[in-house]
Amino acid sequence: MRISELSRRTGVPVGTVKYYLREGLLPSGELTSATQAHYDELHVSRLALIRALLGTGGLSISTAREVLAAVDNPALSARDMIGAAHSALPITVADERPDLSEALAHLRRWGWQVHDESPAVSVLAQALQALRLAGFDTSNSMLDRYAASAHEIGAQDVAEVPMDSAAEAVRYVVIGTLLLEPVLLSLRRLAHEDVSTRRPVPLSFGDQP
Amino acid sequence: MRISELSRRTGVPVGTVKYYLREGLLPSGELTSATQAHYDELHVSRLALIRALLGTGGLSISTAREVLAAVDNPALSARDMIGAAHSALPITVADERPDLSEALAHLRRWGWQVHDESPAVSVLAQALQALRLAGFDTSNSMLDRYAASAHEIGAQDVAEVPMDSAAEAVRYVVIGTLLLEPVLLSLRRLAHEDVSTRRPVPLSFGDQP
Repeated sequence: MRISELSRRTGVPVGTVKYYLREGLLPSGELTSATQAHYDELHVSRLALIRALLGTGGLSISTAREVLAAVDNPALSARDMIGAAHSALPITVADERPDLSEALAHLRRWGWQVHDESPAVSVLAQALQALRLAGFDTSNSMLDRYAASAHEIGAQDVAEVPMDSAAEAVRYVVIGTLLLEPVLLSLRRLAHEDVSTRRPVPLSFGDQP
Repeated sequence: MRISELSRRTGVPVGTVKYYLREGLLPSGELTSATQAHYDELHVSRLALIRALLGTGGLSISTAREVLAAVDNPALSARDMIGAAHSALPITVADERPDLSEALAHLRRWGWQVHDESPAVSVLAQALQALRLAGFDTSNSMLDRYAASAHEIGAQDVAEVPMDSAAEAVRYVVIGTLLLEPVLLSLRRLAHEDVSTRRPVPLSFGDQP
C-alpha cells in the first residue's frame, strides 16, 4: 500500500508517518519508483506499536528507538533480547543515587535473583526512603505482602510470554510491562474505593466528638 | 523551637520552610514576638509529609495544598475525608476523554462498587484502549487475574488504615496510596527478572535457526 493508505489504515497522519521514518522508528518501505514506496502489514502493526510506546507508554523518541532496536536484533538469545527490551523501558528514578542497602536486604530475604544495578532496585530503594521520611511504617509484613502479590503477578506475566517468535516475545514484554502498569495502579485505587464502600466505616474517628 | 531549629531538625532549608509557610502548606507558628514564631512537633511531622508529597509523590504545590486541606478538614466524616484525600491524588489521565464502556463492563462483571467518574476508571479505560491498539490480547482471564491481585492488595491496604485519629488516617491513605505505587511497580519488574532468571528459557525462539 502507499503511504496515504498506511495513514488511513492506522489513523496516523502522513506527516507523522514520515517523521517516524526519518527518526528510524519505522523501517522504510520498498521503493517502487524514485518517489514512491510500498508499505505492508508489518508497517501497520509497527505503527500501532510505536503509537503505544510513545502514547500511553510515555516513551521519548530516543527511548522508543532503543526498545525497538532490541525488538529488531535477531542476534540476541531469547533471554538477552527480553532483558535488553526490559532494561530499556523507563522507570522513574531520582537524580541522586539512593542507598540500596535496605532494598537489597529485602530482596535477599525473599531470595529473589536480580541484578543490584537494575533500575527497579533504585526505584524501590528510593520509595522505601521516602516512606520512612514520611513516617510511614514499612514493616517487613507489609513489604512481604506487596512482594508476594507482585511476584504472583510477575510470574504469571512471564508464563504468558509467547516463545514461538522472537519479535512477538519482545513485543509482548515491552507492551505488557509498560501498558499493564497503569492497569495495575488504577485497579488498586479502584479496589480501595470498592473496599471502603463496603467496609463499615465509623461516622467519625476516635479523636472526633 | 525557632525556625532555625525546625530547619535543622528536618533538614529543610529555612528559605524553603518560609516558602511552604507563604504557600499555605505549613501552618504558621505561634508568634512569640513581632518577628519570631514558635514551632512544635506538629510542624516537624507536617514538613516530612510535605516533602514526601512534593518529592517522591511528585505532587505540584497546588495539588499538595488540596490534599493537605482534606487532611485538615475535621468537618468531614471518616469516609468523606479519605475519599477527598484520595480523589485529590494525581493519576495520569490523557487529555482526551476515553470511552469508558469497556472498563465499566469489567468493573460491573467483578461487582466492584466504584463511581463511574473516578479518575482511575479513565486511566483503566485508556490503558485498555492502548493495549488493544498495540495488538495486545486483553482477554478476560488476564484482566481477571490483575483485578484479583489488585483487590487483594487494596483490601489489605484499607484494613491497615488506622482509624483512631482522623489526621493519621488521611495521612496514611495519602502516603500509602502515593508512595506504595512505585514500590508495587518496581517489585513487579524485579519479579519479572527473578522469574526469567529461574525459568528454563530456550536459547533461541521458535523462528530462529
